[in-house]
Amino acid sequence: MLTPHRQDTNSLYLTQGLNDLGVSVAFKTIVGDNRQHLTDGIRIALARADIVLLSGGLGPTEDDLTRECTADALGLELHTDPSTLLALQARFTARRMAMPPNNAKQAQLLDGATLLPNPNGSAPGQYLDTTVDQHRKIVILLPGPPKELKPLFDEAVKPHLAAALPPRFLAKRQLRMALIPESTVDARTAPIYQQFPDVETTILAGHGEIQLHFLATKPTLAEAQQRVDEVTELVEHEMGDDIFSSHGESLEEVVLLMLGLHGQTLAVAESCTGGLLAERITTIPNSSRTFLGGAIVYTPIVKTALANVPADLIEQHGSVSEPVARALAEGIRKATGATLGLSITGIAGPTLMSGADTGKPIGLVYIGLADGEDTQVKQLQIPGDRDRIRLWSTQHALELLRHRLQ
Amino acid sequence: MLTPHRQDTNSLYLTQGLNDLGVSVAFKTIVGDNRQHLTDGIRIALARADIVLLSGGLGPTEDDLTRECTADALGLELHTDPSTLLALQARFTARRMAMPPNNAKQAQLLDGATLLPNPNGSAPGQYLDTTVDQHRKIVILLPGPPKELKPLFDEAVKPHLAAALPPRFLAKRQLRMALIPESTVDARTAPIYQQFPDVETTILAGHGEIQLHFLATKPTLAEAQQRVDEVTELVEHEMGDDIFSSHGESLEEVVLLMLGLHGQTLAVAESCTGGLLAERITTIPNSSRTFLGGAIVYTPIVKTALANVPADLIEQHGSVSEPVARALAEGIRKATGATLGLSITGIAGPTLMSGADTGKPIGLVYIGLADGEDTQVKQLQIPGDRDRIRLWSTQHALELLRHRLQ
Repeated sequence: MLTPHRQDTNSLYLTQGLNDLGVSVAFKTIVGDNRQHLTDGIRIALARADIVLLSGGLGPTEDDLTRECTADALGLELHTDPSTLLALQARFTARRMAMPPNNAKQAQLLDGATLLPNPNGSAPGQYLDTTVDQHRKIVILLPGPPKELKPLFDEAVKPHLAAALPPRFLAKRQLRMALIPESTVDARTAPIYQQFPDVETTILAGHGEIQLHFLATKPTLAEAQQRVDEVTELVEHEMGDDIFSSHGESLEEVVLLMLGLHGQTLAVAESCTGGLLAERITTIPNSSRTFLGGAIVYTPIVKTALANVPADLIEQHGSVSEPVARALAEGIRKATGATLGLSITGIAGPTLMSGADTGKPIGLVYIGLADGEDTQVKQLQIPGDRDRIRLWSTQHALELLRHRLQ
Repeated sequence: MLTPHRQDTNSLYLTQGLNDLGVSVAFKTIVGDNRQHLTDGIRIALARADIVLLSGGLGPTEDDLTRECTADALGLELHTDPSTLLALQARFTARRMAMPPNNAKQAQLLDGATLLPNPNGSAPGQYLDTTVDQHRKIVILLPGPPKELKPLFDEAVKPHLAAALPPRFLAKRQLRMALIPESTVDARTAPIYQQFPDVETTILAGHGEIQLHFLATKPTLAEAQQRVDEVTELVEHEMGDDIFSSHGESLEEVVLLMLGLHGQTLAVAESCTGGLLAERITTIPNSSRTFLGGAIVYTPIVKTALANVPADLIEQHGSVSEPVARALAEGIRKATGATLGLSITGIAGPTLMSGADTGKPIGLVYIGLADGEDTQVKQLQIPGDRDRIRLWSTQHALELLRHRLQ
């Protein structure tokens, strides 16, 4: 975690879980596999926090020092846990291997600690509720690999912490919106959520989406639920149709759900997004119930070949034009037999277009939506770089479709 | 950075830059906007490191405490830098706004520090080369937003640090491979790179790809370059065709480059990957020179409509079969006029298939490649979940294409 290559995701997961239990995270420290650094780090952590959670360094190698350094920092001894040692040996026997002597250190437990069995790896976790300088301290050791740490935290650490901490009933809600600036959402919703000082409100923006998170903690679950429902309803009333999801579903999921409810099927024709729209939709399991497929019409010839766009229409107006967006939506609908055809054609850059598209600006995008009776085309000018233009184009396409289905 | 929502990317960027200058990162600490926590944190950092780099907390609000806390920790005073104050006022005047009094604190400079002008925001950085308890310490303050921090680090901090540190000449190389297990790469290459103890070797694995990074530091650039070239050549010889890139290009870039060199054009027909292959290819600017487009044949009807796969072929063998993969590759090639047709059909799960595909396992994938004369089909059984099966399917497709073009 001190290299340029490894993204820290564990600590975000742990922070979410701790916050849910009413624990704030005040410090995070990343230390290398160095005995002095690690022991000092644990001492500093014990001096400034009530709960110290350590991850990593529980393996069998010389570099794995978390057990030893935690014992040193606490002034405690380590002892070998016989049943853990037997379980370790059994893991090796099952693979017809002799256990290297080094692995025995994975069975070492801090005096007074509770062992947290790890079904996904050889290093068990440890949970210690102790006293340091007359202050109660909880020290938790978890293995580093996310596939081991996450289940161990959820299944073993959380119940121990919940029992050690004051009871807490918390309720959460989440509203999601696309394409609106964060400042607009905040300006319109702050007068509402500020009337709920007992509800924690978080606004998250990114990837063409705004999320509003509400969290309330109360003496009973019913009270907590009631408060978050109250603020959620008022904000829903204020933001109206701009909200695409009030129970955490993604925009893709919402659109697929609505397609199913209305008995509609969808096909797409993508130019500048090059498959991103279809890729997003097909990330959702069972999307094939309503999403039939479509065409990546990345060049003029393929617009004609797969979506029956007349070649002279492209020659006359350019690939990035209202008539071509219209013809793509209608053409892909007809070619696939879908009830709805959705098209995207635009200039994602960085290179400018030639032919009839000469002089059109980067970020110019047309979205077409055809239902067999009527075809709607929306013209957009999307700011930003290639990746942003592609992503926002798909957001606009999904939002156009969602509004039509509503 | 103490919430569950914000991924830390700044520190990885800074670590890379520091490593290139010969500086190891020994500790990272994340502290909240709390005067005591932050001042203590800086004191601890000064006690255990020669260079302390702080990011964030340079804004105009009450919560922005980095300047004040750094001054406290160092026992230094802050003074107002007149030209910075004027520049701040000019920013507001340009926007026809009066500067709020709070913003003046952004012009406060640590005594003895060099100001680092920030062209992308209102908070300038600071660079201080000082003495604490008779030890030389370099303290650097940078704004938190990545768009401000990164250019400021590259353009202002790096030159200062390079001048302060011993001269260092470093050379780097990178080899990239797809689809091979990390353990295989390590088993075959360790006997080579272990003969180069003066070259730092890092193996990174993820997303169906293995990267081997080599780094050497020498008294001259020529010596450093020679050593990394030596180890790179030996490893290239050992791994041969498995290496798709020896200068950092992505697999998509390599394939597009080879298509161009051979005067070939490509079209794709994607079933279970739902557009992911095309999306990856079209992420690369100017991909339309050789990538024509293709079809997302997510349902049997679209396989027939857009890639001319005979309906009875699907009925007889199922969508996920050798004959359908073959027909898709040949069909999309013909329909688009491309010289090469590449197809993917498989079961990504979690739901099993019906009809003639009943009983076929999740992870069964066929890749087809047609060039007009010969059509090659590869059958795979890819382990893992839906996302992994989709990603690895596109890796296999790109690798099949690369080997053909080679």
